[in-house]
Amino acid sequence: MAYPLHTLADYLSKVGMTCTVDGNENHEVLGVATLEDATSDEISFLANPKYESALQSTSAGAVIVSEKQTTPKGMSVLRTANPYAAVMAVMVHIHGYRKHKPAVAGDRAVIDASAVIGENANIHHGVTIEANATIGRNVVIYPGVYIAENCRLGDDCILYPNVVLYDGTVLGHRVTIHAGSIIGEDGLGYAPVGEKWHKIPQIGTVDIGDDVEIGANCAIDRATLGRTVIASGTKFSNLIAIGHGTKVGENCMFVAQVGLAGSVNVGKHVTMAGKVGVAGHLNIGDNAELGAMSGVMKDVPANTRVAGAPALPIKDAMRSISLFEKLPQLHKQIKTLESEVEKLRLALKDNENE
Amino acid sequence: MAYPLHTLADYLSKVGMTCTVDGNENHEVLGVATLEDATSDEISFLANPKYESALQSTSAGAVIVSEKQTTPKGMSVLRTANPYAAVMAVMVHIHGYRKHKPAVAGDRAVIDASAVIGENANIHHGVTIEANATIGRNVVIYPGVYIAENCRLGDDCILYPNVVLYDGTVLGHRVTIHAGSIIGEDGLGYAPVGEKWHKIPQIGTVDIGDDVEIGANCAIDRATLGRTVIASGTKFSNLIAIGHGTKVGENCMFVAQVGLAGSVNVGKHVTMAGKVGVAGHLNIGDNAELGAMSGVMKDVPANTRVAGAPALPIKDAMRSISLFEKLPQLHKQIKTLESEVEKLRLALKDNENE
Amino acid sequence: MAYPLHTLADYLSKVGMTCTVDGNENHEVLGVATLEDATSDEISFLANPKYESALQSTSAGAVIVSEKQTTPKGMSVLRTANPYAAVMAVMVHIHGYRKHKPAVAGDRAVIDASAVIGENANIHHGVTIEANATIGRNVVIYPGVYIAENCRLGDDCILYPNVVLYDGTVLGHRVTIHAGSIIGEDGLGYAPVGEKWHKIPQIGTVDIGDDVEIGANCAIDRATLGRTVIASGTKFSNLIAIGHGTKVGENCMFVAQVGLAGSVNVGKHVTMAGKVGVAGHLNIGDNAELGAMSGVMKDVPANTRVAGAPALPIKDAMRSISLFEKLPQLHKQIKTLESEVEKLRLALKDNENE
Repeated sequence: MAYPLHTLADYLSKVGMTCTVDGNENHEVLGVATLEDATSDEISFLANPKYESALQSTSAGAVIVSEKQTTPKGMSVLRTANPYAAVMAVMVHIHGYRKHKPAVAGDRAVIDASAVIGENANIHHGVTIEANATIGRNVVIYPGVYIAENCRLGDDCILYPNVVLYDGTVLGHRVTIHAGSIIGEDGLGYAPVGEKWHKIPQIGTVDIGDDVEIGANCAIDRATLGRTVIASGTKFSNLIAIGHGTKVGENCMFVAQVGLAGSVNVGKHVTMAGKVGVAGHLNIGDNAELGAMSGVMKDVPANTRVAGAPALPIKDAMRSISLFEKLPQLHKQIKTLESEVEKLRLALKDNENE
Repeated sequence: MAYPLHTLADYLSKVGMTCTVDGNENHEVLGVATLEDATSDEISFLANPKYESALQSTSAGAVIVSEKQTTPKGMSVLRTANPYAAVMAVMVHIHGYRKHKPAVAGDRAVIDASAVIGENANIHHGVTIEANATIGRNVVIYPGVYIAENCRLGDDCILYPNVVLYDGTVLGHRVTIHAGSIIGEDGLGYAPVGEKWHKIPQIGTVDIGDDVEIGANCAIDRATLGRTVIASGTKFSNLIAIGHGTKVGENCMFVAQVGLAGSVNVGKHVTMAGKVGVAGHLNIGDNAELGAMSGVMKDVPANTRVAGAPALPIKDAMRSISLFEKLPQLHKQIKTLESEVEKLRLALKDNENE
Repeated sequence: MAYPLHTLADYLSKVGMTCTVDGNENHEVLGVATLEDATSDEISFLANPKYESALQSTSAGAVIVSEKQTTPKGMSVLRTANPYAAVMAVMVHIHGYRKHKPAVAGDRAVIDASAVIGENANIHHGVTIEANATIGRNVVIYPGVYIAENCRLGDDCILYPNVVLYDGTVLGHRVTIHAGSIIGEDGLGYAPVGEKWHKIPQIGTVDIGDDVEIGANCAIDRATLGRTVIASGTKFSNLIAIGHGTKVGENCMFVAQVGLAGSVNVGKHVTMAGKVGVAGHLNIGDNAELGAMSGVMKDVPANTRVAGAPALPIKDAMRSISLFEKLPQLHKQIKTLESEVEKLRLALKDNENE
């Protein structure tokens, strides 16, 4: 489908992003692309000034820019306050989300007779659904997914290939889990007996709230007792490890390779950047922001930012890190002081002896 | 099944954890739960004083506590020296370990005619077992597992869904591998030829000892030559990477996201906390403890603790880390000293000139 | 097949590694093994002087050593300038690479009628190939692999079990992807709306060049727009996370657990050691070397080495790290200076008052 620029401008204005067109408002675009890749059939955008030079070389048919942005002569542009938000809206408008085709081989899935499958569920070949599992309406389950006994999935969930849900896992509505992620495996629970480790049964489960999205190849431990919780609206990237009994609040955002030990309590709307680690039994307050590679060894109060390993409040961390880089200079200053002081000591002695 | 408290007390005393009941010793419980979640049909426990306030609000039918713990009036309690060990014993007694149902669709597995399958093996649909593999007795193999040529599995192993064993992998008895873990993939072995990398055949294998448990989505490289070894009794959490030819001793415990390069030698009963990294060709001695996020760049002697990146002996690490946090203050002290010394220098000069 | 030593020496000389035999040049070997494991039927090697003592105890039938290496009396040795390169060549000569048996159960794969499958492709049971996918010649696809719509695979690719390619993923020729790796999942793209996160469609794809090898359980995000690129000749170890829109140049080498955020540009022939993290939108120049566990927060120029978190040029990092370890001593020096200065101040005052 082709979209004349004036229809896109109308659409953006309608959803609250006032927008004006410079240039040919009848120019039609078929899709969205980066400045680098876009052709004359595509619309692009400039949000990060770092990429401004690409405006000169782009072949895009139109570009969404900020209101004051200077642009090459003859370029068709949509001007709006927040070009990044606008292009995202245009992407949803033109491209929408991934379509899931009906399974062609559902008869090859292995579904226990006691499982309850909702209307319009789309279950691919090679899927296993064990006893007493409940699957909501319109759920899409790709090949190789394993759903153990007593799992409960809400409506409109999407499980990409090779996802594994251990027994008793509960998903809310509209949960998306990307390929290869494992939910509900046993946590690292052992009692020491001499040098040996005796396994502690892990009889808890995992609860995942509505609208959660989990990236690829994550691993979320079941609780030893009770529940591991990922609350509604939270989004995970890939290769994230969550320990047993940890509870993550609503609308959090975790970047790839974050790892939380067991029994951590994370508040609402917490951001953890890539590779953050959090030790066990800690509390991370609402809206906290943990910088990339932070190693968190004590509680983080609500509405604070931390960085570093061990993590410190961001300003302290920045100051210490900046001085860490200057340690050779500080070392030199100390050596200079030592020789200055020695000189003074000798000079004073001379004075006294005079 | 219902357990009157006096029967649990008897059981604990019998297994060496002397125990007394305060309150109604005939009260019956059906299971174990956390203080937060437990109902009057369940028994809970208090081991970590941090959670003491939950004793006031719990609905648990009984609580396992330490001998001197003060408890709310009317609460039924089991008193014992180590409440954590006691509740673990009660969990094993009441709940036991996960039961594995017989496969309903074994006929859809693809098993090479030359493979030898032990008595009572429980092989689910979608499993592949290649030529000359040997599978022990009572082994449970969940859907989507791939077992390549010449693998040998001992008795009573459990392979959760989508585990992959490359050719020649050897598992001892009672090995558990959680979903999505990959054992025996090729290591990062390439010879540089100009700027290109020529692949070195990885002809070694992986040996995993008895009673090893591997978490979800781990990756253990085969050796280039010889064997990568995970010795008996060792336990891994999730998302752990082990390089080619590395040997991990008996009864080690590795937390999530640990990564060991190739040709590392790890002794017995070594603990590595979350996200530890160890460089290649190092020796880590018996009983060593590596703190979370340690970056180990040189050998760690037996019976020592290290922390930090690069890792230092724990006391040195703690001291340096604590001073790192005080760098802004040290910087100020140095600046103050410089101005003091300058003042002294001038004063001394004045003296001399007088 | 048996290889007399003189034939191996001839072979090595022919491929440019001049080689002489000491001892019985007719001794026959069947394979290559480590000094520790080799029997009299096997040839071994000594490249790292750290392992020299193993020469005394080995049972190897022959050993490849450097030209000047002293060796036990009676040992048959091949002497050459670079024993490591030589043993690699002998491994390729004797053992070659993994052989892939023809699939026995291709009829159980689910292949869309619109997919185009190249000659001699080897597609195992449990594989899914969706609409409009194109698969090259001689491709090997192991069980449990999922190939979504519009993927294009070149010739001679190997996909190990349970690999998942999301829609539109493009692989060049001779690409190897180890088990459990996921290519093309949605990146962490959300627009904030109050405290909630609205998903941004991820309409880009992933392009992987010729001769790329990807380890086990990696996760490579598709681009939001445009393409995530892993260029020809690049090699990844396991558990690596690549963010959306990131471009990795030719012939790079990434060790396990490396994580790159989105929109990173990595040049050619860049080495990243284990657990390196790189923040978004950065440029890493050609031939850069990033030390293990580096946390890269700003651009890295071509041909430079960095280390530490935040990463610094290697020399600066080494100096600061070495002084970090000496912070307790620097602290003491500062305290000593303070008391010295105070003493001087008092002495000077006394002088003045005299």
